[in-house]
Amino acid sequence: MEQPASLLLTHCPPTLPARAYSDPVWFAQEQRTIWARQWVYVGRVADLAMGTMRPVTVANASIILCHDNSGTIRAFHNSCRHRGAEICAAERPMGKLISCPYHAWTYATDGRLVSTAFANPTADFRREDHRLVPVSLRVWNGCIFLNLASDPPDLNPDPGQDALDNWPMGSLRTGYRLVKDIACNWKVFWENYNECLHCPGIHPELSDRVPVYAKGVMSVAESTDINAESGLTPGARSWTMTGAACGPEFPGLTAGQRVAGHLFTTVYPSMFIVAHVDYVRCVSLTATGPETTRLTAEWLFSPETLAQPGFDAAEVARFATLVMLQDATACEMNQRGIRSPSYLNGTLMPQEFDLYAFHGWVLNQMDMGIS
Amino acid sequence: MEQPASLLLTHCPPTLPARAYSDPVWFAQEQRTIWARQWVYVGRVADLAMGTMRPVTVANASIILCHDNSGTIRAFHNSCRHRGAEICAAERPMGKLISCPYHAWTYATDGRLVSTAFANPTADFRREDHRLVPVSLRVWNGCIFLNLASDPPDLNPDPGQDALDNWPMGSLRTGYRLVKDIACNWKVFWENYNECLHCPGIHPELSDRVPVYAKGVMSVAESTDINAESGLTPGARSWTMTGAACGPEFPGLTAGQRVAGHLFTTVYPSMFIVAHVDYVRCVSLTATGPETTRLTAEWLFSPETLAQPGFDAAEVARFATLVMLQDATACEMNQRGIRSPSYLNGTLMPQEFDLYAFHGWVLNQMDMGIS
Amino acid sequence: MEQPASLLLTHCPPTLPARAYSDPVWFAQEQRTIWARQWVYVGRVADLAMGTMRPVTVANASIILCHDNSGTIRAFHNSCRHRGAEICAAERPMGKLISCPYHAWTYATDGRLVSTAFANPTADFRREDHRLVPVSLRVWNGCIFLNLASDPPDLNPDPGQDALDNWPMGSLRTGYRLVKDIACNWKVFWENYNECLHCPGIHPELSDRVPVYAKGVMSVAESTDINAESGLTPGARSWTMTGAACGPEFPGLTAGQRVAGHLFTTVYPSMFIVAHVDYVRCVSLTATGPETTRLTAEWLFSPETLAQPGFDAAEVARFATLVMLQDATACEMNQRGIRSPSYLNGTLMPQEFDLYAFHGWVLNQMDMGIS
Repeated sequence: MEQPASLLLTHCPPTLPARAYSDPVWFAQEQRTIWARQWVYVGRVADLAMGTMRPVTVANASIILCHDNSGTIRAFHNSCRHRGAEICAAERPMGKLISCPYHAWTYATDGRLVSTAFANPTADFRREDHRLVPVSLRVWNGCIFLNLASDPPDLNPDPGQDALDNWPMGSLRTGYRLVKDIACNWKVFWENYNECLHCPGIHPELSDRVPVYAKGVMSVAESTDINAESGLTPGARSWTMTGAACGPEFPGLTAGQRVAGHLFTTVYPSMFIVAHVDYVRCVSLTATGPETTRLTAEWLFSPETLAQPGFDAAEVARFATLVMLQDATACEMNQRGIRSPSYLNGTLMPQEFDLYAFHGWVLNQMDMGIS
Repeated sequence: MEQPASLLLTHCPPTLPARAYSDPVWFAQEQRTIWARQWVYVGRVADLAMGTMRPVTVANASIILCHDNSGTIRAFHNSCRHRGAEICAAERPMGKLISCPYHAWTYATDGRLVSTAFANPTADFRREDHRLVPVSLRVWNGCIFLNLASDPPDLNPDPGQDALDNWPMGSLRTGYRLVKDIACNWKVFWENYNECLHCPGIHPELSDRVPVYAKGVMSVAESTDINAESGLTPGARSWTMTGAACGPEFPGLTAGQRVAGHLFTTVYPSMFIVAHVDYVRCVSLTATGPETTRLTAEWLFSPETLAQPGFDAAEVARFATLVMLQDATACEMNQRGIRSPSYLNGTLMPQEFDLYAFHGWVLNQMDMGIS
Repeated sequence: MEQPASLLLTHCPPTLPARAYSDPVWFAQEQRTIWARQWVYVGRVADLAMGTMRPVTVANASIILCHDNSGTIRAFHNSCRHRGAEICAAERPMGKLISCPYHAWTYATDGRLVSTAFANPTADFRREDHRLVPVSLRVWNGCIFLNLASDPPDLNPDPGQDALDNWPMGSLRTGYRLVKDIACNWKVFWENYNECLHCPGIHPELSDRVPVYAKGVMSVAESTDINAESGLTPGARSWTMTGAACGPEFPGLTAGQRVAGHLFTTVYPSMFIVAHVDYVRCVSLTATGPETTRLTAEWLFSPETLAQPGFDAAEVARFATLVMLQDATACEMNQRGIRSPSYLNGTLMPQEFDLYAFHGWVLNQMDMGIS
């Protein structure tokens, strides 16, 4: 698994400027050019029951998710075409139509306006101009992604579309969920995610579980002279408090995937997936403000694992929850310091190559979105 | 009472644009051109005890109400001419003078500065330039209206100055009061007020009480082919839970007014009055922010009704409270949906002729106010 | 001690305009031209234990205070030069180095970067460009002042650098502390501080203790025809509930200082000191927003006084706390009234000569800071 040492940066470049982390104008431009143009994770297919509608939020827009009559999941802006009323305030049952509670306008599950109820429009009224406004939707590995753009780009996971092909992603079910508001800009979260220099100091338990983290690097690929395994510490199989797997291991994994013990897949700007031999974790972000971010983590299990007598998903979640709360504390500490008038920008270390790439991605998206 | 069907719109025009309901700049212009230039209801004459002063708010300005020495109600900006201190923080007794608690400057009830207390102004100080700043005031039907403009227009109730002449408005007393903050723009409230398309779905109890509402219209005047009465359901006399009058009926009403069972009088932008055969309700609004509105409802009764043994004004208030809370829920649902980036504007139905007129009134006021 | 009556203004000039007290733009300019350019009090030398670091705030900037290896107090911006993390979230012990909790970068107490921990910078990285950013610091009478400017002016107390020379300021210790958030602009606080026209009405207890205050003036110097002492009422020695001194009197005071019973020293914009025969009070301000100010009061005592059996600093603090809470209430009343749209500016009385000087100082600072 060794890779060339060229992953490391060959210079120490500046970070993004301080205002990228708190300026409402910068934030608004990101909302427009990144969050409203990229695919944003909004939940798992398996968690949306047939015959229900649910509101989700993308780039501050409320969107209705529901199944159409063929069983396909559809997404529409959550606003009636009459006078704009919110159609779905909270997850609720629906019949075969989408009905607005205010004046009872009714839409088919393909968005067509089928009734204006007590209102009798005049001949100039064009029903075809009053369809629910659709939102682009993709399902990948059982995960639902929405895109507000009229011309959505491809969904572009790192390290690739097929990264999780050996995991039975579509059949996994959510067993535990954590929601945590973090007082930091969303990019601070991703910067923390993208380096392990902080691991020895911030994550003692995780650094025990993944020995290479105790060296301050994410994998042995970063350096040829690190004497440690990239994978889990000998004897450990997963990210649980004991290190034991919480159920039967997924059958389709390669030997290398089992030894590694975790696989990270990233879909900027909204989520990453950590796949273990026994369970999978989806972590997603909502940029709720220039200095606030909502994190949602979902622990996914096979039906067999969930069916084990006495299975306790909350206990499984304890280990990664510990790590994520440590990261949340670090992110808030970083955000507070960035507010200093003395801070104009920072300097990246060679090991922060993934941050450097992330910064480039952000700036590139924002340029593309400027008109 | 039948009117021509021409009340109905002959086309389906667009509503106000979405930003009219949340943009702080639009809101500020409304405050300046509508709320600070129109007559705004601030309470009942009968509720201001002689010898007390009370602060009220108009267009975010604090105003003192009090009686002058002749017993006439006067209004002044609540700010001392010395260094601006608030003179009246809460309703409190006063003597024959208006005294500032900070440095004890004292004003006559006509606004004249009569004492600077411990301060000894030099000869250049002009007392006549340091009067309390008066605010225009009108009393109509026992209701106090203030106007911040230097050249106030006429008070212009709909359907007219004399609409309530058969009710003994001046002698009624407040028996119950409801204050409710609604998370909507003030215009959303008035739009809801101005149509009954929502009545069948939102107001089941009210639609039982007023059969024509169950057809989605406000009166039979809207259509010649509606088979229902405009007034209350047979046997009902008023808007109470049982339908019975809560006390003796007002003696001066016409037979038509008794059959109708309710009469709505509107004074944009701040209030409406619903007059029944047995009691009257004043409902007033304060636009507290682009997306927040405070509603105050007052139930007015004759002294005879209030004096009935065991009379329970709260019980009388239950029916209209139920209706107003249903409307508040609908207004908040409407406001949330208007925030959708997909919503640019809505489309009015022919039955929404009063909304159309309201939108025109708003735009007209704002134009007039632009300088 | 009599001074010429020319202290009184010979005309009644206007105050600052209303917007000086609530406009965020005006506030931001003050932060930049006054709070970030003047010496700001942040605490007492005696209250910073050797071997600890503490974050303090100046003009919204977080600053670390700590001792260097020679025992001198130093100040640095609280932001790591790596990626900006906050170094010190709350008072905490430190060793001989300043260490960032995020990635373990370490700085000497003179600000030099001495370790980048797990990060291995490339040759282009310049340690000398990654020192902690220092902040100018002065100690005067045992009080620590910081200045964010690169070219700080002199510390300029009124009535002079030597005003407190007869008090053993350096040896006093904090025995009691009060923190109070006041809903007013910081200048409203200083205006209240600068006149006694409000004393008779707002401070009955204080006006009993200092008879001249009951006349609405700060000292007999303001007028030749006031029949009262400038000092404390006969028999009283200090600002305590009983008037008795709370411990041994400071030995170095002059007879005049003992008779006067209080000496006010002012250091705009952040603090004043009131020195009595038995204790000293430091009162400091932080302008937390256009309409909010945080007041901190510290009661300082000699070690002998603190060591008295049964000594109760809270009891000593009661008198001045009473006075300060009365002032806080008055300031909030003033702030509310200034929000009136009718208030454009006020008019100063001849006795408000110190307000007039303060207004001139504010405007002068703001002009100097405009670039």
